[in-house]
Amino acid sequence: MPQNPEVLLGPGDDAALVRAPDGRFVVTTDLLLEGRHFRLDWSSGYDVGRKAAAQNLADVAAMGAEPTALVVALGVPAKTETAWADALADGFRDECAEVGAAVVGGDVTRSETVVVAVTAFGDLGGRAPVTRAGARPGDTVAVTGRLGFAAAGLALLAEGRAERWRAERAERAGEPEGEDGLAELVAAHRRPRPPYACGPEAARLGATAMLDVSDGLVQDLGHVAEASGAAIDLEPASLPLPEVLRAAGRLLGTDPFDWVLGGGEDHALAATFPPGVRLPPHWIVVGRVREGRGVSVLGRPAPHRAGWDHFRE
Amino acid sequence: MPQNPEVLLGPGDDAALVRAPDGRFVVTTDLLLEGRHFRLDWSSGYDVGRKAAAQNLADVAAMGAEPTALVVALGVPAKTETAWADALADGFRDECAEVGAAVVGGDVTRSETVVVAVTAFGDLGGRAPVTRAGARPGDTVAVTGRLGFAAAGLALLAEGRAERWRAERAERAGEPEGEDGLAELVAAHRRPRPPYACGPEAARLGATAMLDVSDGLVQDLGHVAEASGAAIDLEPASLPLPEVLRAAGRLLGTDPFDWVLGGGEDHALAATFPPGVRLPPHWIVVGRVREGRGVSVLGRPAPHRAGWDHFRE
Repeated sequence: MPQNPEVLLGPGDDAALVRAPDGRFVVTTDLLLEGRHFRLDWSSGYDVGRKAAAQNLADVAAMGAEPTALVVALGVPAKTETAWADALADGFRDECAEVGAAVVGGDVTRSETVVVAVTAFGDLGGRAPVTRAGARPGDTVAVTGRLGFAAAGLALLAEGRAERWRAERAERAGEPEGEDGLAELVAAHRRPRPPYACGPEAARLGATAMLDVSDGLVQDLGHVAEASGAAIDLEPASLPLPEVLRAAGRLLGTDPFDWVLGGGEDHALAATFPPGVRLPPHWIVVGRVREGRGVSVLGRPAPHRAGWDHFRE
Repeated sequence: MPQNPEVLLGPGDDAALVRAPDGRFVVTTDLLLEGRHFRLDWSSGYDVGRKAAAQNLADVAAMGAEPTALVVALGVPAKTETAWADALADGFRDECAEVGAAVVGGDVTRSETVVVAVTAFGDLGGRAPVTRAGARPGDTVAVTGRLGFAAAGLALLAEGRAERWRAERAERAGEPEGEDGLAELVAAHRRPRPPYACGPEAARLGATAMLDVSDGLVQDLGHVAEASGAAIDLEPASLPLPEVLRAAGRLLGTDPFDWVLGGGEDHALAATFPPGVRLPPHWIVVGRVREGRGVSVLGRPAPHRAGWDHFRE
């Protein structure tokens, strides 16, 4: 595994040693289980490695920190092919390379099914951590990164439609099968692409609260509202609804807005900013913080801990 | 979970924030799986928590660092009782309290069997890490902590003998069942008691190499020899062989020295020191580093990666 200047002692000893330039380190951990968080017939070893790294590195970025390193504890069945494990390692390596982080240690053991436990670290560069609790009435709510892509991709896989649709389309057009829009959604499920750099950027812009959208935008903003003791009014009309999501919605008979508001796993970032902060264009303003409690969508209160689809008409 | 001064931001956000006073942190991770690393009929939730914490905190100590914090990613079956999970958390809390560390974060998910992934952190206080690679010819090899206790306890459990022996003894003596010697061995399997403070102590004494004994003394000293490019002559006559190990050996028809030299999981510490270092009495000199390769026991070469029982006459 490639190392980086933050790694003072890499894999191979009882423990690794990692630099913490500002005298503190950000740490987050996630457990991914075969059958629950990924399926071996839907995701390759490489996909699992990228996704497991991504969802942890996104949590680091969501604190406003720069990811530095991660460790991986892996359980694999005896029958697992070396090529699968190598691909997993490649996935970790490549996702870490996106942010300049290094895999500094790990543990491998036999297991009935694949178990991937990741712990990721980051450095705040002297800044305060951006928690979920700092949103204040009057703040702007903004998001960056993709929303609904991974959920739509998962829905396509679950319906077994992605492959069929691509085959039909190729037949109609007389084209060979290739990359297309729906494949992008399936790829988004397999390999989320969190907007890592936007985490520290938001911190520098003065974000008052931030998290990564892993459970769905409405539900995750509910966490911010609750932790901050404030209300959030969401005005989703400003959210983009790309044609590829509309196409998948038509195919599956689903309102694609369900995926945008209720779908997790894209690891977009949602943050609140003091009024008057000029945001770069990749931050899309989607609402406002006010006195009160809970999240409302288009003026209607969203039930606590429910996705958009549970309360729309 | 109780926190400590090292914890700047505890559980509940995307990530935690932990102090790293000397600008670096030591990190180690381990995966414990039901059926492989523990059995729910042999260990309570409390035992599993203590053991999972202990084996990671011991790795931190084995670098010469003071443990500061850990994170836990947990998979539990839907049928798991709350009391079991509470006991697990209590076990983590109490083992961490032994060293003043705090559980700063975690992840919980549904799982078919119990999965416990722990990542632990420590601070070196400005010292260099004590790796496996620094042993030099002429160095003294010393150990501290219990050896063979956990292996003997596991053997007793595996033979189903511990309970029977206690019952018979109680019957003969007309005594009620209670704590006794063999129970201590079984307890050692369930809850290792690593000599945490001896890790930083060894570093301050100038230890040139160190590790925690998790695979067995002979095999683990083989790691030191290999990483250091030197040979280790082990003279096990100096190792204590407590009466409780002898008693268990008689009961099971096993040479108790097999457990002392080949048994892991007590998380004793083994270290090498420059000649002339005066060691406190809890460090027992068991050998010497010399030019060459591999480990020898009483002058006979020990096969690479084998416990004592695989090569004795």
